[in-house]
Amino acid sequence: MMVSERIVGTVPRRSPREAAETVAPDATLGVSGFGSVGYPKEIPLALAESGRDLSLTVVSGGSVGDEIDTALVEADAVERRHPFQARSAIREAINDGTVAFHDRHISALGDEVAHGGLADVDVAVIEAVAVGEDWLIPSTSIGHTPAYVEAADRLFVELNHAQPLGLQRLHDVYRRRAPPDREPIPLSRPDERIGSPQVEFDTEKLAGVVLTDRPDTPYSFRTPGETERAISANLAEFLAAELDRNPILAESVQFQFGVGSIGNAMIDTLDAVDFGDRTVHYLGEVFQDGLLDLLDEGQIASASATSLALSEDGQDRLFADLERYASDVVVRPASVSNSPEIIDRFGVIGVNSALSVDVYGHANSTHVDGAQVVNGIGGSGDFTRNCPLSIIALPSTTSGGTSRVVPMVTHVDHTEHDVDIVVTEHGLADLRGLSPRERADRMIAECADPDVRPDLRAYRDRAAETAGNIPHHLPSVFDWRSDHPDQQ
Amino acid sequence: MMVSERIVGTVPRRSPREAAETVAPDATLGVSGFGSVGYPKEIPLALAESGRDLSLTVVSGGSVGDEIDTALVEADAVERRHPFQARSAIREAINDGTVAFHDRHISALGDEVAHGGLADVDVAVIEAVAVGEDWLIPSTSIGHTPAYVEAADRLFVELNHAQPLGLQRLHDVYRRRAPPDREPIPLSRPDERIGSPQVEFDTEKLAGVVLTDRPDTPYSFRTPGETERAISANLAEFLAAELDRNPILAESVQFQFGVGSIGNAMIDTLDAVDFGDRTVHYLGEVFQDGLLDLLDEGQIASASATSLALSEDGQDRLFADLERYASDVVVRPASVSNSPEIIDRFGVIGVNSALSVDVYGHANSTHVDGAQVVNGIGGSGDFTRNCPLSIIALPSTTSGGTSRVVPMVTHVDHTEHDVDIVVTEHGLADLRGLSPRERADRMIAECADPDVRPDLRAYRDRAAETAGNIPHHLPSVFDWRSDHPDQQ
Repeated sequence: MMVSERIVGTVPRRSPREAAETVAPDATLGVSGFGSVGYPKEIPLALAESGRDLSLTVVSGGSVGDEIDTALVEADAVERRHPFQARSAIREAINDGTVAFHDRHISALGDEVAHGGLADVDVAVIEAVAVGEDWLIPSTSIGHTPAYVEAADRLFVELNHAQPLGLQRLHDVYRRRAPPDREPIPLSRPDERIGSPQVEFDTEKLAGVVLTDRPDTPYSFRTPGETERAISANLAEFLAAELDRNPILAESVQFQFGVGSIGNAMIDTLDAVDFGDRTVHYLGEVFQDGLLDLLDEGQIASASATSLALSEDGQDRLFADLERYASDVVVRPASVSNSPEIIDRFGVIGVNSALSVDVYGHANSTHVDGAQVVNGIGGSGDFTRNCPLSIIALPSTTSGGTSRVVPMVTHVDHTEHDVDIVVTEHGLADLRGLSPRERADRMIAECADPDVRPDLRAYRDRAAETAGNIPHHLPSVFDWRSDHPDQQ
Repeated sequence: MMVSERIVGTVPRRSPREAAETVAPDATLGVSGFGSVGYPKEIPLALAESGRDLSLTVVSGGSVGDEIDTALVEADAVERRHPFQARSAIREAINDGTVAFHDRHISALGDEVAHGGLADVDVAVIEAVAVGEDWLIPSTSIGHTPAYVEAADRLFVELNHAQPLGLQRLHDVYRRRAPPDREPIPLSRPDERIGSPQVEFDTEKLAGVVLTDRPDTPYSFRTPGETERAISANLAEFLAAELDRNPILAESVQFQFGVGSIGNAMIDTLDAVDFGDRTVHYLGEVFQDGLLDLLDEGQIASASATSLALSEDGQDRLFADLERYASDVVVRPASVSNSPEIIDRFGVIGVNSALSVDVYGHANSTHVDGAQVVNGIGGSGDFTRNCPLSIIALPSTTSGGTSRVVPMVTHVDHTEHDVDIVVTEHGLADLRGLSPRERADRMIAECADPDVRPDLRAYRDRAAETAGNIPHHLPSVFDWRSDHPDQQ
């Protein structure tokens, strides 16, 4: 049911400060927000400015904006944070050990909060474009809002007038039953709608509605450079060959691209591939700027995600033409968009980036030097693990020139059992059916920076002196480079 | 449809030698077999004894017996082997690098063979208890037989009179459509049957039927010792508390236990837990000896798996009473038994072992020292990744006294994003919602061998000197023990 008013019926209005004052100092907040959009702003700011001694647990769907992950953190109000973040204040606090962080897959997070023992939500704080006595309509993301609203004892809604009411046309809220009486998700086409625009709740739960017109502080993307364009060209060449080979791609092709500048740049790859008569759908976690062009040009038939993770420019474009985009864009709960069942059912091709990969096909997408977390695994594991074709796309080196192709990654987020393809600006390694030794040869020859290949081959040869399916020389595995201090 | 004859209609009979002679020297064989049972025996032996120069690729569902993984390997006839093995001859050849091995998850393997580019099956060689002109009935396992039969150009059936025809009463063969027109698996109860006992095929594909009465060479299990009993007691205590807490366990509980002696020992845990009025189902990958007692005693209502991975004694017990067990035991394709969709739908509690775990919650289930493969990941990743409650159960040390709890595992099969609980003979660490630092404290205090705790704490303190969500001191991460040669 579409609504034409922001507030329907009688709801308790609260100021941000009134709402914040009712939050216990050690409360667990389940907040909306995913892809840095659609998160609550006023109540977190009021909590940050309260001067109270707070030790909150904050559970979001995905990344949120500065009002939570900067202001609240700088006010020393956050003790625990799940499952993903993308702001420097919270990142530093996690790496300092002052904020406890459990980095979880997105797909199962709603369940983990609802019954899995990850966190027991006291208060849900949800941004909405409209609210009634027992329902709300999410704004620019859905994430795990339905699960958190259900799990919470109390609910605050931030009604945001900066977010257009027309967003309701995009939403498809569907809530599954819990195991063991869980039903299959009844989605039979990538662009099908199976729910409603509204998240429903018990009317007694609604503790207050706060008004705001603060906009999101969304992502900004780097313009793709030469490296990204070269990665994209290598990927396009592979996809063209795979379209010819793979029987499940004969009539339609479904893609997911990871969040961020590389993910956004990889979307352009679809422009370079001749899909013939095939229908192409985007069936991913986040909807990014690059998809707007593809939809406008008719390159893709539909796009679905749990977050409209657009830049400011992208938001302007979408909001100006919501009516038109609504026919082809679906925003779903993360428990649907990232569901292993759905990824498998439609045979999604997953393209995700990583911090580093090793020559045997393991990928690190979260921790520099195995220690310093960047953002978190997000949905990359949901897709890499469940896709029939999982692709890791990354530059061969960091901007500082350090190789991203290494003998052993210092943190494994995606295992050798899950990664099919690795592509860099130098080439592409198809690892399917290869032994670890064969993978290493292929990765060094195709994906590594040419300057690093001699060192990687030297490691491979040193490792080959000891037997093993995956040859390793553990004493030098993390200091394998000829310029490494320990080797000089 | 049940059959009363072993051969129905007119099928081409072949001797093992005749069949073997038609196999090209570099053929890819898709063989039946899972949990060391239900694999073809005569044709592999004939190939091994042929004296021909062979370089075969052999893809099975799971582990197979000596006729394939010993005889064929010792005849130097295997060039490539997927996805799992459990015999010393093949293991040594893989670790020597003479056989190429890609260690894959079980759930998606049928798809990977059918359309994923892992291997292109020329000949399917399948053990059956009965065969017709366009169907066969599998013997003691199903595994990926339906997918391999469908993918193969030609099919040989080994009709095994040592396997009772009554096994047909247990089988429930269901074949899904391929993406993107894949349907949800229509399984609404753990013990439901949705298919038939038969694997169907195009009659032109059937190249020959070979008769045999060679029995399986199945697993044997160690009698649980003091350590296994202590792990089981710690697990039982946790399960009792979780039954009280977790709303999805209020009415029924579904379990999976990993293959092997520890998995079989953990099954006994169910005897020690008071489930009250709850119905308990086993919904796993392999059916092991311990389940026979639980079924006999009515402790579990049903058991389903893709393999009857019983010991010889267990096979005797099952075969003597097939009629009775058929009401509660279902054998399914691995694409159903290990399906992420099914594991999630029924909320299976997964209990799997590992070679080692690290204090941050990563588990190594495949490679000693990151190099030497033992068996492979099998279905442990399917369950650990998709279970709402994933448990790793292992002794705190090897039989030689080396700690299995370490600062960083040398190979990651199950990530920190997937492991909920670790249990050893010393105690249990519930890692849900904990930061890596908190996990390390818990793992050291609860799970590690007391003699090793001082060294693990020394590592933790050394690592804490550098910042990071996951504190690590990479120079000593693999030689962290005070008795390590590099530390002396």
